[in-house]
Amino acid sequence: MTMLIRNKWYVASWPKDITREPTSRTILNEMIVVYRLEDGSAVALKDCCPHRNAPLSKGKLIGDSLQCCYHGLEFNAAGQCTKSPGMDQVPAWAKVRQYPLVERNDWVYIWMGVPERADESLIPDVYGRMLDPDWHCVKGEIHVKGGYRLIVDNLLDLSHLAYVHSSTTGNPEVAEEANLGTEVKSQHVRVTRFMKDVVPAATYKHYGNYTENVDRWQVTNYYPPSYILINNGSYAVSDRPETPADFATELGHWGFQVYHAITPATEDTTIDYWCVALERHRLKPKAYEVWREQMINVLREDHEVYEAQQVCIDKGRPENNNDVSTGGALPSDKALIAARLIQRRLYNEEQKQTT
Amino acid sequence: MTMLIRNKWYVASWPKDITREPTSRTILNEMIVVYRLEDGSAVALKDCCPHRNAPLSKGKLIGDSLQCCYHGLEFNAAGQCTKSPGMDQVPAWAKVRQYPLVERNDWVYIWMGVPERADESLIPDVYGRMLDPDWHCVKGEIHVKGGYRLIVDNLLDLSHLAYVHSSTTGNPEVAEEANLGTEVKSQHVRVTRFMKDVVPAATYKHYGNYTENVDRWQVTNYYPPSYILINNGSYAVSDRPETPADFATELGHWGFQVYHAITPATEDTTIDYWCVALERHRLKPKAYEVWREQMINVLREDHEVYEAQQVCIDKGRPENNNDVSTGGALPSDKALIAARLIQRRLYNEEQKQTT
Amino acid sequence: MTMLIRNKWYVASWPKDITREPTSRTILNEMIVVYRLEDGSAVALKDCCPHRNAPLSKGKLIGDSLQCCYHGLEFNAAGQCTKSPGMDQVPAWAKVRQYPLVERNDWVYIWMGVPERADESLIPDVYGRMLDPDWHCVKGEIHVKGGYRLIVDNLLDLSHLAYVHSSTTGNPEVAEEANLGTEVKSQHVRVTRFMKDVVPAATYKHYGNYTENVDRWQVTNYYPPSYILINNGSYAVSDRPETPADFATELGHWGFQVYHAITPATEDTTIDYWCVALERHRLKPKAYEVWREQMINVLREDHEVYEAQQVCIDKGRPENNNDVSTGGALPSDKALIAARLIQRRLYNEEQKQTT
Repeated sequence: MTMLIRNKWYVASWPKDITREPTSRTILNEMIVVYRLEDGSAVALKDCCPHRNAPLSKGKLIGDSLQCCYHGLEFNAAGQCTKSPGMDQVPAWAKVRQYPLVERNDWVYIWMGVPERADESLIPDVYGRMLDPDWHCVKGEIHVKGGYRLIVDNLLDLSHLAYVHSSTTGNPEVAEEANLGTEVKSQHVRVTRFMKDVVPAATYKHYGNYTENVDRWQVTNYYPPSYILINNGSYAVSDRPETPADFATELGHWGFQVYHAITPATEDTTIDYWCVALERHRLKPKAYEVWREQMINVLREDHEVYEAQQVCIDKGRPENNNDVSTGGALPSDKALIAARLIQRRLYNEEQKQTT
Repeated sequence: MTMLIRNKWYVASWPKDITREPTSRTILNEMIVVYRLEDGSAVALKDCCPHRNAPLSKGKLIGDSLQCCYHGLEFNAAGQCTKSPGMDQVPAWAKVRQYPLVERNDWVYIWMGVPERADESLIPDVYGRMLDPDWHCVKGEIHVKGGYRLIVDNLLDLSHLAYVHSSTTGNPEVAEEANLGTEVKSQHVRVTRFMKDVVPAATYKHYGNYTENVDRWQVTNYYPPSYILINNGSYAVSDRPETPADFATELGHWGFQVYHAITPATEDTTIDYWCVALERHRLKPKAYEVWREQMINVLREDHEVYEAQQVCIDKGRPENNNDVSTGGALPSDKALIAARLIQRRLYNEEQKQTT
Repeated sequence: MTMLIRNKWYVASWPKDITREPTSRTILNEMIVVYRLEDGSAVALKDCCPHRNAPLSKGKLIGDSLQCCYHGLEFNAAGQCTKSPGMDQVPAWAKVRQYPLVERNDWVYIWMGVPERADESLIPDVYGRMLDPDWHCVKGEIHVKGGYRLIVDNLLDLSHLAYVHSSTTGNPEVAEEANLGTEVKSQHVRVTRFMKDVVPAATYKHYGNYTENVDRWQVTNYYPPSYILINNGSYAVSDRPETPADFATELGHWGFQVYHAITPATEDTTIDYWCVALERHRLKPKAYEVWREQMINVLREDHEVYEAQQVCIDKGRPENNNDVSTGGALPSDKALIAARLIQRRLYNEEQKQTT
């Protein structure tokens, strides 16, 4: 069993995908129906009628009431039954779990844990420029047959760009010449990778118009259970400023940001809501279209790796809790090991509170 | 584990689907081969050669002998080996279980329990007008990825017509205006639903040519483990006779009958052999064709609900024996609760006898 | 659980299918990557990077180094890590299991057991004429959803030709008129089947140009865990020599040889590497093409039986270790019972050594 942490906000959807047509999602092994009320606000209920277990997502909205497709019980946004056809009174037991839902940062967040602890201030600020009109945002959602930790691992060790994305954002220098810094706090891991005076990778050279070596940086921020924000920047060696850039936020001459909200569907399947953000002024429309396709392909390349890893994991030792069976750690694994310790701590704390 | 009851007759096939070509079916988790002898009588044997476990349904008939496709052992209709190629004598162990089979009422019934208890008089009379030349019979068989109890539930609570079949046989009045009566005997549950002076549902209005409100009735009869007979009738309020119709058998001005034989293939898959019967004089050929398609679609609509419920059930509590995890009961659930009590009693009795 | 024997050579591939492009195979439940070094020699490693469990078969060869697709770790043919990008020294734990591999007899053999015991002299001589330029070899590999013992059974009881291959190599005489001899040694079972003065089967009559009855023989040799060599021969009764042929090696007027290397992929899936060999002078090119198609079809017919058996087995008794649940034995089962005893003995010996 993967240690799924419940008392956290997870991204449940892109706002555009929650409509007046109820739809079903699986999050932390639970079936959830999401839809919008007439005033536009989004609602999440357990996707299972308490009467005969028909999924409520097969039903339809009558005003703000979600009507079960089977025997017509109606539920309001709080999950309270408001109508039981042919009955004067609605039975007390007829209610479904409602999940706190918050629409923010161009994402819709769901709280899967104890309702009383659903504090909106706990939503991590991992959305960067998603709402900034001066930025392009390439967005997508990949449904991975693999555990969520595999995706977190990937983004906490960007040396993989050299091999998985060698035709675009990576070259050997990314793996071999990086100076690594890892900072760990109780609910935050930050990895700074700085590559000084290196040959630029293909897309950096192309879009940055570099004709010489560059300084390049990548800063990955991890917030548990599974949010990632990456700042990527570079400048030509000859353009290097006297005071070095703030790698965590500055982009230099060519750079972009990456955001991931990684939601476990089950122990070994995951939905990765991702966004790559670029300042609009950096690329003309045609060049942007090419870059956009490249970014989508980068995610496809990662997706393939996750699913191949999961096949290996499934063949491996069952006592390993559905996780990687590693022979040991490389220096570049420091951050992902720290992330696992945080995950385990949060999970254990949660288990103690429950029992 | 679903509680599968063995000492009962189950429908194994439509007669037309048992031929001189042996075919395989799965019933109560057992593989069964069915075929016809030269005199036309139907036979059912365990579909597994006792020699090397080739399915006998892959073999061929040589006269009345079923020859295994693999090493040519031949079995007669009693499951006795009659030939073992190259041997003078047939080994004593070479026999397969034969299942009592009865062809009646345009269905073929199989006995899955203790052979000595296979009493033909126990076959329930749930076939109504299937053999009556004055009636149309729309027939079909749906293979459901869902437990058999879901189908029984559906037919014991016809309020669902208002929601699942709202374009044809249902309208809100079916759920909201019905007067319910439930009678329970040791092996019979009857639900009478009477809707007085209500707007007729779409197909009632159309085929009954109603221009005013109607009285409408539905009487569902359940016989364990899983037979259903429903009588549906109606008349215009202005045509209401002085003595009300016998709802259990009369059709009034517009009505029809429905028969279901529901056979568990496994704990959570089921074959529903169904028939909707209509007096021939009620519809001209063209109208009949339209009505026929509507009835087939009604079954499709139910089929979708069953499989959606099973997905919910599979996500739910495993301690629930593969059944609905209900929050509570509505008045309309009285019959299906009674059916479950009968099922459980029969199952428990059977378990006691076995041990 | 099938008793999978590890300390044996198994065929892992046809030589032509191991190239400079790494590919993955599953053998005895383990994922293996195979590829060739620059000098052409074949290598097999565990197909799972010890760092983050990416399959090495997704990687690429850099000279003789297999580079992991994910973070670029490189492994040599011994499974030792030779490069860890960005590190001066390779970590001691970074190694993958290497499997002894031997290319011989037009097959590539892998040793799945304790490496120290990988003695090439233990590779069984079951390849007959595969390397003989005067012989045609029809070869193939079938991926069976069924346990390996089902395939061994098939080849140790050739009476099935009468039923499974009745349009080509079999007729009732093969099952009914055979004189059987079974010899059992500690790691060898031989079944001799001699059919005296019988009607020739279809392909025998056609290609042998027989106009009268024949003497026909089949000798199956089994070497554990799962190698089979079959010698098939025949002559017309009127051509019968004074000294009878050596059935184990001679072909008479019309005959051919069959070789099988049967490799368990998992407990209940298997790869059967097969070859049917025929002296070139026996058939003109056009006739050979027809015969070739017939042989491929013979294997297809067997394949269907295996998978049908496995379905029966899966429905059957779980305590039966994923094997046939037989009611008893026929005389023709003597050899396959002997094979099972050998398998069990070898498995038990192995288990004792491990613990």
